[in-house]
Amino acid sequence: MNKINVGANFPLYPMPVSLVGALVKDRPNFLAVAWFSRVNLDPPILAVALNKVRHTGVGIQEHKTFSVNIPGTDLVVETDYCGIVSGKEVDKSALFQVFYGELKTAPMIQQCPLCIECKLIQSVSLPTHNLFIGEVEGAYTEERYLTDGKPDMHKMKPFLFIRPDGTYWTLGEKVGEAYQIGKQFQQKR
Amino acid sequence: MNKINVGANFPLYPMPVSLVGALVKDRPNFLAVAWFSRVNLDPPILAVALNKVRHTGVGIQEHKTFSVNIPGTDLVVETDYCGIVSGKEVDKSALFQVFYGELKTAPMIQQCPLCIECKLIQSVSLPTHNLFIGEVEGAYTEERYLTDGKPDMHKMKPFLFIRPDGTYWTLGEKVGEAYQIGKQFQQKR
Repeated sequence: MNKINVGANFPLYPMPVSLVGALVKDRPNFLAVAWFSRVNLDPPILAVALNKVRHTGVGIQEHKTFSVNIPGTDLVVETDYCGIVSGKEVDKSALFQVFYGELKTAPMIQQCPLCIECKLIQSVSLPTHNLFIGEVEGAYTEERYLTDGKPDMHKMKPFLFIRPDGTYWTLGEKVGEAYQIGKQFQQKR
Repeated sequence: MNKINVGANFPLYPMPVSLVGALVKDRPNFLAVAWFSRVNLDPPILAVALNKVRHTGVGIQEHKTFSVNIPGTDLVVETDYCGIVSGKEVDKSALFQVFYGELKTAPMIQQCPLCIECKLIQSVSLPTHNLFIGEVEGAYTEERYLTDGKPDMHKMKPFLFIRPDGTYWTLGEKVGEAYQIGKQFQQKR
């Protein structure tokens, strides 16, 4: 089991895929983003990292709001397209049916099974990226994505992004119950 | 397609699972963490969000280093255990075979297919969590996890964490090539 140092830029882990939305010059713009995470429990806060050259960042800085939309596998082509073309050159506002929540300036995507609107509370400037930290104001789904009132991943069908081959992957199978299977180990010890 | 506002705390998306490591009072400690993301391209930078009550955060603040280890499904029980018990009560240093890289104070896990060591460059204090932002100093894997010199997810077998049921999931199947399938749409338009 000899470890090899494969360098700092070695691809890391399966990343969930989102479409980050913002109003840029009064037009909804959406960007495919795999670098995001929840970062606070109470209140719920998300952080998204956007390359500084990205058009969507302009809108986030202007309105201090953004959305994080989780697409299902039926939107994989449109999602990839939103990562290929820039809102500087192409009007992406017509790609999706857009709706707004409480914040009024965070465009969300009707076709996505889960849409989250955020209010910018802090920005961290990193060398190539801006890390936008936003408090979640609301999350939107539809009855058809729920089972017993809970989000059902078999219905939402989110997908993951993997480097270095640059591929999208579905979720597979359950391998265990969190905060449960670890107790086996606790008992064993 | 009527959207329902399901509240700010609605569970979000499949989260990759890691074990974040730090030296706490000279003892390696590991915590299961699903709230992390890459946040900068060049240099490679990661951010991890840790509840302020967590023992691992003490070590990160002391040594200004930490590790992010990606476990395979064969470590799902140990990983879950590291999320259940606190290093304040249990010595987790004996759970894994530990090694060190360039940084000397970021303990990494021999049993994990991918181990990343980071140097803390910034901390963001949020209400319940600290967001630790670290530049990647090195990443470590083994030949047996590579195919043609590239990381192979079928060999590494990372897993995801999903709320609200609190379950771990494997990766499924490829659904497309990134920066490629979107071109279909571009051509269609």
